[in-house]
Amino acid sequence: MKRISVLGSCGSIGIQALDVIRLHPEKFQAVALASGTNVALLEKQVVEFGPTLVSCSTAEACQELKNRLKHYPKPVEIVHSREGLELAATLDAVDLVVGGLPGSIGLRPAFLSIAAGKDLALATKEVLVMAGRLFMDSVQESQSRLLPVDSEQSAIFQCLQGNKNNPIKKIHLTASGGPFRTKTIEEIGQMTRDDTLRHPRWKMGPKVTVDSATLMNKGLEVIEAKWLFDVEASQIEVLIHPESIVHSMVEFEDGSIMAQLGATDMRIPISYALAYPERILSGAQAVSFPQIGSLNFEPPDTEKFPLLKAAYQSLDDELNCAPVILNAADEVAVGLFLEGAIPITGIVPIVMNALNNITPVRLENLDDIEAFHKDVTQIVQESSARTFP
Amino acid sequence: MKRISVLGSCGSIGIQALDVIRLHPEKFQAVALASGTNVALLEKQVVEFGPTLVSCSTAEACQELKNRLKHYPKPVEIVHSREGLELAATLDAVDLVVGGLPGSIGLRPAFLSIAAGKDLALATKEVLVMAGRLFMDSVQESQSRLLPVDSEQSAIFQCLQGNKNNPIKKIHLTASGGPFRTKTIEEIGQMTRDDTLRHPRWKMGPKVTVDSATLMNKGLEVIEAKWLFDVEASQIEVLIHPESIVHSMVEFEDGSIMAQLGATDMRIPISYALAYPERILSGAQAVSFPQIGSLNFEPPDTEKFPLLKAAYQSLDDELNCAPVILNAADEVAVGLFLEGAIPITGIVPIVMNALNNITPVRLENLDDIEAFHKDVTQIVQESSARTFP
Repeated sequence: MKRISVLGSCGSIGIQALDVIRLHPEKFQAVALASGTNVALLEKQVVEFGPTLVSCSTAEACQELKNRLKHYPKPVEIVHSREGLELAATLDAVDLVVGGLPGSIGLRPAFLSIAAGKDLALATKEVLVMAGRLFMDSVQESQSRLLPVDSEQSAIFQCLQGNKNNPIKKIHLTASGGPFRTKTIEEIGQMTRDDTLRHPRWKMGPKVTVDSATLMNKGLEVIEAKWLFDVEASQIEVLIHPESIVHSMVEFEDGSIMAQLGATDMRIPISYALAYPERILSGAQAVSFPQIGSLNFEPPDTEKFPLLKAAYQSLDDELNCAPVILNAADEVAVGLFLEGAIPITGIVPIVMNALNNITPVRLENLDDIEAFHKDVTQIVQESSARTFP
Repeated sequence: MKRISVLGSCGSIGIQALDVIRLHPEKFQAVALASGTNVALLEKQVVEFGPTLVSCSTAEACQELKNRLKHYPKPVEIVHSREGLELAATLDAVDLVVGGLPGSIGLRPAFLSIAAGKDLALATKEVLVMAGRLFMDSVQESQSRLLPVDSEQSAIFQCLQGNKNNPIKKIHLTASGGPFRTKTIEEIGQMTRDDTLRHPRWKMGPKVTVDSATLMNKGLEVIEAKWLFDVEASQIEVLIHPESIVHSMVEFEDGSIMAQLGATDMRIPISYALAYPERILSGAQAVSFPQIGSLNFEPPDTEKFPLLKAAYQSLDDELNCAPVILNAADEVAVGLFLEGAIPITGIVPIVMNALNNITPVRLENLDDIEAFHKDVTQIVQESSARTFP
């Protein structure tokens, strides 16, 4: 029995991780759940999965959940805030942590899980984007296994199984191209929040869906892949593949290319991370190739989607600081877009402005990285407030 | 240093195996060569690779090669016929045998190599088609590794690396569709020998090229895959994929599909078999996905290509005898076609007639199989001579 802590249990990844756990009660037990303030859903998850620890993001949500669970017969500790989350990330009774928190809030728990010797099924992109070198060093020093949950990183990870000693020549990182792939720059300018959130292939949270529309998401994945698989940015080639059936590919020295394919269903990479190296029923539909008929590929248009190029360029920064700026600025900009404060075309200038004007600093440790992220966030928020009052 | 014996050194597989060996003089040494009667090429191969044993198929060729190599300064034993070939298949100084002989002549040497504890890079389809169960039992009992060289079987083998304990749900066996994929049955009737030998994707020997045009080749691969990977025929789905970039795929229980892709260059599967589990430079070109643009898939048309269906049906025979009939009848029919004795449309009736009219018998051992193959060959030749005098 693998005992699992699901961080971000009410988010897209967390819910689908619980879907997989539900399919395999003989294999998995959800012993801890951590989420934000969606108390109604947390209550249902507690009743269904019977964790011994639950963490909410606020004291109020914690209190409300306690009230709701007044008559719940089993012992469950209900905690909150950063301390609660960190407890869920490091609980003794946990074997594997699902890192499904959105954004920079997922950074420290990922480090703590690894330091506590837990296997980590990691979906939070920010961990490797903000702290790639530091995090991979921590994984190296630990007894923990890092299991990528992102569909592309999981595909690459799967392609590398059985190729432990074969150096990677090239990673073909596929991208659906997002909802604006076939639009002109002018047309993209007219796109609303709803247009942007209508991703053609994947059901995901709002931040990553907006990032998919700008290809920022693929840029973040380039940074992730660089650290996860220890390759140079120049070895990673982004490939637009509108059908999103090929989830990524790895090319080797012999000219052979291994690919992982499947339905656009996050339960495939999630189930692989949970049961690795075993493959188990994920609940995903089978793919019918005759039905799909054709799989298409084209190079990305970095003029239309400059954030992808910016992500590559951020990797040139020897201080590993530019990706933190890129990520924080994008987080602010996407937030403003989702609030309706800026149009979709407002994201690129905010990010580029931050990259061009904020001076990289040396980031020695996790505290430095978190502090710098906060600083950049504040600077970008203030300058955006001046631009879009 | 891996010491290699190349059986069929002047055939398509043998020549390309020597191409790979040439690229890696620090890894491989060709210590034995066996071929037919192409003495001029054998002479060149001896001078370049310096084997210690060479076998020709006839005493005359052997004598001619001896004459040509009169002044060759290094010691080389030149032998011939079945005994010579068997010597090359079992030589003490050999670590790995390349089984590149075309047709049923490659059957016994494959068994002997395995029995002698050699690793076997097997290209000869007939070994698994004619003697699948018996051969896999021999491999199981031996210390030898069986490494498939066929591009599709190698692809499946590569997809299974890192999935040792994950049961196969389905094999997606790809097929280019051959030169007559888009032709009607009527148009196929008009196709000449040259039309048939013009394969759209692969450079191969004449027998397999004709078999590709009738999809018999894919049928033989279904039978091979069944034995190689221990699956039911119903778990193997043939998928027409005209670009021949995806060389085959394996689907697992989680819905994940692993695929191996690459240029249509046999040096990729050959180099993988020679250096397994290491990947080495094969000389193959890289694939550019943006350049290819699209990969297409469609179901096979078994009405137009009934031999594919016949191959599946031959696996229903509990005596494992029907595949021997299928294979021998096809060998005769393709021979007649290549001689110009019958049109391309003459192949199907010959094979179907043999399958429908020759009674399966119990085949206990290799001698039985070889004798039955000979019987079927004679019956089919005689009945064809009556039909096409």
